[in-house]
Amino acid sequence: MVKISIKEAKERIVEIFMKAGMNEDEAAIMAQMLVEADQRGVNSHGILCTARYVRLIREGKMRPNMEKKVLRDNGVVAVWDGNRSSGQLLGYRGMEEAIAKAKKNGVGIVCIKGTNHFGALAYYSQMAQKEGLIGITLGTGDSTMAPFGGCEKVIGNNPIAVAAPADKQVSPVLDMAMTVVANGKLTNMRRQGIEEIPEGWGLDRDGLPTTKMSEYYTVPPLAGYKGWGMAVMVDILAGILFGGGTGDRAKDVSEGPSLFIMALDIDAFNDKAKYLEDIDSRISELKSSKPAKNNTHGILMPGEIEAGRFEASEQSGYVDVLPENLKMVNDLAAEMGIRQIEVKETKDN
Amino acid sequence: MVKISIKEAKERIVEIFMKAGMNEDEAAIMAQMLVEADQRGVNSHGILCTARYVRLIREGKMRPNMEKKVLRDNGVVAVWDGNRSSGQLLGYRGMEEAIAKAKKNGVGIVCIKGTNHFGALAYYSQMAQKEGLIGITLGTGDSTMAPFGGCEKVIGNNPIAVAAPADKQVSPVLDMAMTVVANGKLTNMRRQGIEEIPEGWGLDRDGLPTTKMSEYYTVPPLAGYKGWGMAVMVDILAGILFGGGTGDRAKDVSEGPSLFIMALDIDAFNDKAKYLEDIDSRISELKSSKPAKNNTHGILMPGEIEAGRFEASEQSGYVDVLPENLKMVNDLAAEMGIRQIEVKETKDN
Repeated sequence: MVKISIKEAKERIVEIFMKAGMNEDEAAIMAQMLVEADQRGVNSHGILCTARYVRLIREGKMRPNMEKKVLRDNGVVAVWDGNRSSGQLLGYRGMEEAIAKAKKNGVGIVCIKGTNHFGALAYYSQMAQKEGLIGITLGTGDSTMAPFGGCEKVIGNNPIAVAAPADKQVSPVLDMAMTVVANGKLTNMRRQGIEEIPEGWGLDRDGLPTTKMSEYYTVPPLAGYKGWGMAVMVDILAGILFGGGTGDRAKDVSEGPSLFIMALDIDAFNDKAKYLEDIDSRISELKSSKPAKNNTHGILMPGEIEAGRFEASEQSGYVDVLPENLKMVNDLAAEMGIRQIEVKETKDN
Repeated sequence: MVKISIKEAKERIVEIFMKAGMNEDEAAIMAQMLVEADQRGVNSHGILCTARYVRLIREGKMRPNMEKKVLRDNGVVAVWDGNRSSGQLLGYRGMEEAIAKAKKNGVGIVCIKGTNHFGALAYYSQMAQKEGLIGITLGTGDSTMAPFGGCEKVIGNNPIAVAAPADKQVSPVLDMAMTVVANGKLTNMRRQGIEEIPEGWGLDRDGLPTTKMSEYYTVPPLAGYKGWGMAVMVDILAGILFGGGTGDRAKDVSEGPSLFIMALDIDAFNDKAKYLEDIDSRISELKSSKPAKNNTHGILMPGEIEAGRFEASEQSGYVDVLPENLKMVNDLAAEMGIRQIEVKETKDN
């Protein structure tokens, strides 16, 4: 890992996106989301994506600035055509709209088709959480996973993110894909020359379990038919329901992926003070339950590790990124005549 | 398994519930739901529950007839206090109301606290699906599961059910708990004297993995921290959000479990004909993908096996139930002076 300045990273990424054709406001939203993912330790959805998004703009697969079309809007539920704008900007604006709708009706839903790579879904759900609402985001992914009992890549890893506000406790945030393990983790292991993969992580081209990297072709759905069933339901809710792309149609050369974004305003469900007291006390109850004998870190709530990393990063003003990801950003900066992001410190882990 | 007449089973169960104090309409809804669970092969939530519900009524833990109190209702979102009425009747009436709200607003949500055992969540979600809407139901369960990395039973198996209508294809229905495997499955294995349990299914009192039935204490969350994270989010959405019972407070001696019920009206999201065409074609695409080499039954969609069983049962007029479950119903009938449900046929499997 290398340590870089948060401020510097955001400034450079804003410049890069502006050179690629984005307006300043949108470039700032993008930079904020990407750096925040690294601050949370989710390097797969951090500054790494900068080069990818610039490439998509250059290839004409992604509009530099957001241009959405409202297809339907009844005040509670809206459907947008993202017109192949940035998935991250669409997700951001979609959650803003879902929050506004929820504040009026208790619940607000915005579905968006024709998006692009949308990064970490946690960000959108956390937008609601930071405003004191509950955020739920589902997204379709392009074909990377085989069905339970199958061997062809026909469905995405179809992530779900839920974030709920707590008061004094850390707000729980769940962001998970429907695969046993991230594809990216195995791709990284392959790059590192690792030949044996853990049991249950890989299927070969015949859909049979394998622990050999050379035979690995797909990652199975988590918990077998359960993860498969959830992936199907995300396909329906975040895709089929409103005509969004699923499977091969979610690819960036086709219709692109799609998003289901929902906010719930706690005031419509409960007395807010009671909710905050109850959630804090439930978190404390769960966290104070006895850890397993082999567990030295105690009971961790969803998103607690990421929140700790983010807090430490914010305090320090620096963020840890993978050297190869920083190189991709700096190579792009060099090509565009933009200053390099400097490495403050190199860490071993 | 023993085969019994659907009509006869429903009639007897209606009589039993009426003797226990229910009115005829509500007894008929209960009988319908219980027998349908057995028709779908979900024997753990079928006629087996008859005796349990009568016991709850007799012990004063469950009202014989539904008496709910509307705590909040803004037209889109409602919160009810179930007043410890039947969880199944509350779920049924709650989904009726969610559907009515969705037809007006595109989405309708009904949250219910103070319920009782609510049986198979699939039923409520399928009520929406049968009316051409999407149904989503979440429920809190009482403490049966340990946290990821924990060893104390502090959280329920917190099930989720989603059902979406298809046109010519079988409508997908997902109904799953957050445990690797149902607790009931292990309890059954114990009853059968099985001493070895499959790897990954059991944890001992120290929260360490075990394959010995004698050491088994809890079932772990599915897929480790993912299932744990989902169980926490169900606790929040189907409980904390509106003051519903979670963990030990979801026990029937305490506040009882609670339900989050949502319906989505496809007309608010899409042209219905396009949706039906799209979902059929997506199901067909997924089902026609190549099965794994060791898979002889092809790709199965969530709920497809249950739908097949139900269809066959409806056609025949008979339903397969476990002999011990039938005995519990017939014992109760005998005690109440009600005619026995006759066994039409005994099957080996």
